[in-house]
Amino acid sequence: MKVTENIELRDREEDYININPLQTAGRTTLEARKAIVSYLDGYSVCDWCKGALCEMEKPPIKKFLEEVSAFLGMDASILTNGAREAKFAVLHALTSPGDAVVIDGNKHYTTYVACERAGVKIFEVASSGNPEYKINPEGYAKVFEQVKSETGGLPKLAILTHVDGSYGNVVDAKAVGKICRDYKVPFLLNAAYTSGRMPVSGKEVYADFISSSGHKSWAAGGGNIGLLSIADSWKEKVFKPSAKYKVKPLEILGCSARGSATVALIASFPHVKERVKHWDKEVEHAKYVASELEKIGLVNLGVKPRAHDVMFFESEVLFKISETHKDKNFFLYNELKKRGIVGIKAGLTQNFKLSTFGKTDEQIKHLVWAFQDIVEKCK
Amino acid sequence: MKVTENIELRDREEDYININPLQTAGRTTLEARKAIVSYLDGYSVCDWCKGALCEMEKPPIKKFLEEVSAFLGMDASILTNGAREAKFAVLHALTSPGDAVVIDGNKHYTTYVACERAGVKIFEVASSGNPEYKINPEGYAKVFEQVKSETGGLPKLAILTHVDGSYGNVVDAKAVGKICRDYKVPFLLNAAYTSGRMPVSGKEVYADFISSSGHKSWAAGGGNIGLLSIADSWKEKVFKPSAKYKVKPLEILGCSARGSATVALIASFPHVKERVKHWDKEVEHAKYVASELEKIGLVNLGVKPRAHDVMFFESEVLFKISETHKDKNFFLYNELKKRGIVGIKAGLTQNFKLSTFGKTDEQIKHLVWAFQDIVEKCK
Repeated sequence: MKVTENIELRDREEDYININPLQTAGRTTLEARKAIVSYLDGYSVCDWCKGALCEMEKPPIKKFLEEVSAFLGMDASILTNGAREAKFAVLHALTSPGDAVVIDGNKHYTTYVACERAGVKIFEVASSGNPEYKINPEGYAKVFEQVKSETGGLPKLAILTHVDGSYGNVVDAKAVGKICRDYKVPFLLNAAYTSGRMPVSGKEVYADFISSSGHKSWAAGGGNIGLLSIADSWKEKVFKPSAKYKVKPLEILGCSARGSATVALIASFPHVKERVKHWDKEVEHAKYVASELEKIGLVNLGVKPRAHDVMFFESEVLFKISETHKDKNFFLYNELKKRGIVGIKAGLTQNFKLSTFGKTDEQIKHLVWAFQDIVEKCK
Repeated sequence: MKVTENIELRDREEDYININPLQTAGRTTLEARKAIVSYLDGYSVCDWCKGALCEMEKPPIKKFLEEVSAFLGMDASILTNGAREAKFAVLHALTSPGDAVVIDGNKHYTTYVACERAGVKIFEVASSGNPEYKINPEGYAKVFEQVKSETGGLPKLAILTHVDGSYGNVVDAKAVGKICRDYKVPFLLNAAYTSGRMPVSGKEVYADFISSSGHKSWAAGGGNIGLLSIADSWKEKVFKPSAKYKVKPLEILGCSARGSATVALIASFPHVKERVKHWDKEVEHAKYVASELEKIGLVNLGVKPRAHDVMFFESEVLFKISETHKDKNFFLYNELKKRGIVGIKAGLTQNFKLSTFGKTDEQIKHLVWAFQDIVEKCK
């Protein structure tokens, strides 16, 4: 069914239980939807502009950003086009081509790409590999020493993926932050899969910077949007304004998200503040799904016990079914869809990830039943 | 009236004739609105991702970008978060800090800020100043010579604002392009106020790059979005992929606009292709408004005859009224609003800009009448 001449109707959230890790926590709230519809034209937040997006009082962007900073335990925040743009902004402000930057082995690809674009030399804290893929905070100290011995100095920045988008491992950010503080290496916490889903406090984990993703984890939509939150001491360097246009921060080229995504983020914020208080429920759901699916032969990779809604499975049992099923490797996608579930990539059976975020108890039970039923009926 | 707890209802396009130059050509079409509502959740265009936003077949982003390239007389295009991000992408790919870049005196502030962020040395082709603010293409040759004598080499890039957002001056881009070609200086045409409104052909004007703004001039919305179109010879340098993630272009950090703005841009495209054919009508409206407002004492700055919908006025007559009017300098805003018109900044009377884009003959007549009536009744 088409919604316009060239665009198909999208009904993933309306008609299915969506378990795509990219999308579960970016599902918009009713409030965000209303705000988006009212502000969907270009430059819609600029009606009362006095020169700077992040200082705008109507819609209340300035006030919202102050609240975000408090919510994340940071001193100041600005809007970006996404978490990747927030990471690049910090890299661009702090480093010169050739400088050393330390990242983790479970990083999102955009962390790597942002480093490449900034021209820095990348040093990686490897994960423990299969099956846990654990990032050991002590690895940061080791790699700092390696950087020191190879380059003669410390890295200009350390980036930690708070929770990665594959295994859903929650890293001990405080331990990494403490090491960075001890070495005096600036610490950027990429909270794309955490802030907006679960409690995050930059102060508690010694973060100098936090990058967040509105469309991934803050129930925002109507365009992509992110947040860059910083500790006060970095204001001059990272929020530096143009020398000529004094209200325009260089690293967001003056103004970033200037349309419906901004009001969506603001409109969803009361809901987001509330939902992080119920993170224990989300973890409970994740644990339950992981353990139930392991009972039918799937293997949940990553650090146990599950502490996040994103999870990765290896599944010989489903792969074997695909070898003789008439739909071949598309059988899992098709069988789940028949049971009202979407979000695992079409064609995958042997390795896949999913997210249980934001589901009700009934939906979680239905999800488990669907896998059980598929294994039973198709085996 | 509030649309949500923290966001006011926005009804500028629904209840008024909006003449804000930022907004007139970013007003979404019905098709775009339908597409936005269907795709308003985070990462909504990523359901069928095979790794790269600009290669996506469902929604038909790849096909759309091919059509955009043909439409603009260029070889290849990618999505960006806006025209400013497109300009910075080119600057970042082509220059190193300290390199010389030539821009024009009527540039958008983001051109300057993008240059500052890239750390380049800015050389400016001055406009002729009040009252025409004309950019003489020959100025580019002169400034290239100046760069040569001051730095010993040619600039790494020349940027021309095709039409500026203050005076609405249409610069002879072909003449500038020819000079750039002769000097072998890469030429970036900032078409934020032209492509999507009026016919633009990169090939005809010898453009190496064109930056476009979806939310400003392509009837897009549901988030900010832009386009970067290039000549084939620049593909390797400007669309360079990550060394590790081969499908992810560095300069857009892999994927840029990944939500409703993308489908809005695609959904509005048939309308945009059609509307540029009727540019003569838009120019006729602009000429009519400029000449009628001059008859009641306003002075239209910029190059004459009017050739674009954006126009700037000096108005001693309205300023004088404001000195004794009970609403002081807010009288013009209030009086226009009473007559169903918004879009001139509240508080301005002596200098202001407006745009007549996309208005019907009746709306244009009403706009002129409103100014006549205000001058007559308030004088």
